[in-house]
Amino acid sequence: MPKKASAKKPAAKESKTVLFERVAFIGIGLIGASMALAMRRAGLVRSIVAVARRPKTRKTALDLKIVDEATKDYAKAVVGADLVVIATPVGTNSAIAKAIAAHLKPGAIVTDVGSVKQAVVDAIAPHLPKNVHFVPGHPIAGTEHSGPEAGFAELFDNRWTILTPPPRTSAKATAKIEEMWTKIGAKVARMEPAHHDMVLAITSHLPHLIAYTIVGTATDLGGDLKQEVIKYSASGFRDFTRIAASDPVMWRDIFLNNREAVLEILQRFTEDLTAMQRVIRKGDGQALEDSFTRTRAIRRGIIEAKQA
Amino acid sequence: MPKKASAKKPAAKESKTVLFERVAFIGIGLIGASMALAMRRAGLVRSIVAVARRPKTRKTALDLKIVDEATKDYAKAVVGADLVVIATPVGTNSAIAKAIAAHLKPGAIVTDVGSVKQAVVDAIAPHLPKNVHFVPGHPIAGTEHSGPEAGFAELFDNRWTILTPPPRTSAKATAKIEEMWTKIGAKVARMEPAHHDMVLAITSHLPHLIAYTIVGTATDLGGDLKQEVIKYSASGFRDFTRIAASDPVMWRDIFLNNREAVLEILQRFTEDLTAMQRVIRKGDGQALEDSFTRTRAIRRGIIEAKQA
Repeated sequence: MPKKASAKKPAAKESKTVLFERVAFIGIGLIGASMALAMRRAGLVRSIVAVARRPKTRKTALDLKIVDEATKDYAKAVVGADLVVIATPVGTNSAIAKAIAAHLKPGAIVTDVGSVKQAVVDAIAPHLPKNVHFVPGHPIAGTEHSGPEAGFAELFDNRWTILTPPPRTSAKATAKIEEMWTKIGAKVARMEPAHHDMVLAITSHLPHLIAYTIVGTATDLGGDLKQEVIKYSASGFRDFTRIAASDPVMWRDIFLNNREAVLEILQRFTEDLTAMQRVIRKGDGQALEDSFTRTRAIRRGIIEAKQA
Repeated sequence: MPKKASAKKPAAKESKTVLFERVAFIGIGLIGASMALAMRRAGLVRSIVAVARRPKTRKTALDLKIVDEATKDYAKAVVGADLVVIATPVGTNSAIAKAIAAHLKPGAIVTDVGSVKQAVVDAIAPHLPKNVHFVPGHPIAGTEHSGPEAGFAELFDNRWTILTPPPRTSAKATAKIEEMWTKIGAKVARMEPAHHDMVLAITSHLPHLIAYTIVGTATDLGGDLKQEVIKYSASGFRDFTRIAASDPVMWRDIFLNNREAVLEILQRFTEDLTAMQRVIRKGDGQALEDSFTRTRAIRRGIIEAKQA
C-alpha cells in the first residue's frame, strides 16, 4: 500500500517520520489535496484515502497521485484510519460526523480544516465516540481556486494553522496534530473557538463578504458600463474579483455558521463607512488624509510579521 | 544632453523614434518615474527634467538615472519642453497649471496622469495658453508603493491608458500622446471625462475607499485583537491592507475630486451590503450561494480580457 510514498522517500528515512499509517480525507478539494501532497512530501503517512461524492473528483485525486484510494463510502474510508481529516464545506460537518462515527478506529484522531470553529465543534463533537480524539483546526491558507487539481504541497509553508481543542482533548493527540502541521510547513497557534471566529470574521469573512458584494454591485450595472468595468478593471476591483471567485458553497456555509461574529464586525464596518461617506460629502480633506495615513501602520505590521 | 539615452540606443535608431526632444515631469513619483524609465527604454525622448519639491526626491530621481535634470523651479523645467507631464496628486493641478502657463513653449503638449478626469480638465485647461495642446490622460496602472524609487519601466505593459481630450484638442497632439503610450507598452482608449470618472469610481475609487475603511475598522480594535488580526492576517484582509497602503495624499485628492461619482456608487454598494446583511441575519443559504456564484462571471471576464 505505501508504494507511491516509498517511491519518493527511502524506506529507512520514512520509517522515522511516519506519523500516521492511514489518513482518510473526507473531501479532497484545495485544502485536502494540499495537505495530502504536503504530508507525502514530508513522509508523514503510509497511505491516503479520500472520500468524494463526485466521480470526477475521485478520478482527479487518483490521476494526480494525491491519494492512494478514492471512494464515496465514508465507512470504507475511515475504517482502520488513524487520522481522519474533515475537509468539506462546514455545513456538511454534522452529517459527516454521524456517518463516520460508528466506523472510526478506537484511538483515531479526527481533525478538520473549517474556517469557522465554534459551529464546527458543536456540529462534530457530540457525534464522535469517546474513544477517538477530536482536534479541530483551521489552516489560514488558500487561494481562489477549488478542487483537488488546485492543491499544492507548499500551500501551508510559513502560514498559521489555528487549533481549537476543547478543554478535555488528549494532549497527546493535540501534540500529534501540531507536529503534523509543523512538518508540512505551517506555524501553529491555539485559541478558543469563539475567539478564533471573531479574529477570522475580521481578517477573512468580512473582506470576502465585501468583495462578493462590490463585484455584485458591478454585476448589476447596465451592459456597456459593466463591460467597461471588466475592460478597465484596475488594481482594487481586480483584487476584489479574485477574492470573490472563491468557492460559493464553502463561503455560504461560513456565513451561515459564523453569523454573530460577522454581523458584529459588519456593523462596525458600516458605521466607519458611513463616517467616511460623510467626510467625502463634506469635502474634509484633512480627515481623509488622516484616515488613509493611519491604515499604513497595519500594513507595516503584516509585512514585519512576514504574512504579506 | 542626450548622453544617457544614447548610451542605451544607437543614435541612428534613436533618431527614427524620438517623439520629444525634452520632456518635463511635474512630479516624479511612481507614475512619473515609470513613464520616464519606459520612455527612455523605448528611445522616445532625448532629455528628461523633473520638478520635485523635496530635495530627497530630486536626489533619488537623479541617482537612479530616471531623469537628466531635477529642479524645484517650474519655469526652469518647462522652458523648451515639447512635452509636459503633470504627475502630482490631482489637488495640486490648478496651482501647477497657473505656475507653468507663462513658461510653456508654443506648440508644447501638456498631459497628465490623474485618476480623476473631469476635475482635472476643469483645473488645468482654463489656465493654459491657446498655443499649447492639452491632452488629459490616465494610465490604469500602479502599485501600493510611492516615490521615484518605486518606478519601473514595465508598469504600463499591457495596461490601459484612457485619454479624455476635450472636443477641440488638436488631433495631431492627441495622436502623438497615444503613440507615446503605445510605445511604452500601454493600450489606449478614449472616453468622456465624466464617463471615465464613473467607471473608475467603480473599479478603483470605491475599492480603495472600502479597503481603507476596513483596515481602519481593524485599527480601532482593542490591542490584543488588533495584534491577532495582524498576526493571522488571511487572504482577503491582507489584500485590503496592501490596497490601503497606497499614497494618502493622492487618494485624498481623488475622493475630493470625484465626489459625486464615488458617492453614487457607494450608495449602490451600501444598499447591496445591507441586503447581504439581511440575508445573513435570516440565514438564507440559497440567496448567499446565488450571490457568490454570479460574481464568478465577472472574474472570468477579467481573466479573458487579460487584465487579471
